[in-house]
Amino acid sequence: MTTATATRAPSGLVSSDNVNGTDVYGRDGSHVGHIDHLMIDKTSGNVAYAVMGFGGFLGIGEEHHPIPWQKLRYDTTKDGYVTDLTEEQVRGAPARSDRWYADRDWEERTHQHYGVPTYWL
Amino acid sequence: MTTATATRAPSGLVSSDNVNGTDVYGRDGSHVGHIDHLMIDKTSGNVAYAVMGFGGFLGIGEEHHPIPWQKLRYDTTKDGYVTDLTEEQVRGAPARSDRWYADRDWEERTHQHYGVPTYWL
Repeated sequence: MTTATATRAPSGLVSSDNVNGTDVYGRDGSHVGHIDHLMIDKTSGNVAYAVMGFGGFLGIGEEHHPIPWQKLRYDTTKDGYVTDLTEEQVRGAPARSDRWYADRDWEERTHQHYGVPTYWL
Repeated sequence: MTTATATRAPSGLVSSDNVNGTDVYGRDGSHVGHIDHLMIDKTSGNVAYAVMGFGGFLGIGEEHHPIPWQKLRYDTTKDGYVTDLTEEQVRGAPARSDRWYADRDWEERTHQHYGVPTYWL
């Protein structure tokens, strides 16, 4: 990598205005969806969920599903995220109400379902 | 607090679409500005900066300044953030280029200026 390239290299930071549309890929490199928006923990400033849009992945048009942030890993070479999510996992996730983001019980079951630690201690 | 109130209590989560405009108060409770947007570390999912808008605080119209996230504390009673920032601190912060968010040297000097640890290790 030349110095000029390094200078133009993408920053590790993204504006909260610009996260929409960031691509998410499966482990095999296939495009599984995109980030519609993030849910941020106001106290810690940690991202808690990526609310992902799935198009063809679920085969029934665009659907939005909150995915625990721990399921996504940023891949600098793709400038996107990689996940080991499966369609079965997303389909089998706990049903949610409109206020899922304020339902700690749903949050616990969801993190358990996806097999990742909760974003709170 | 009644159960009904608890059920309607504000969630600890906020959408990346909705962070804009969150109020920031000084230690004396005065309104010092608002959050224009956040800068999020793509890898860790941690908020790195709140880009704050200051109106009357700086006395020269709306200005935007990136403030290290560590300078803000969420106050649930206010549904906003509290900071001990001073006008002198903001005015005296290291000058920045348009690509400050990709300038690790500027980032280090800025965190040092504000007396807070960097968001990276």
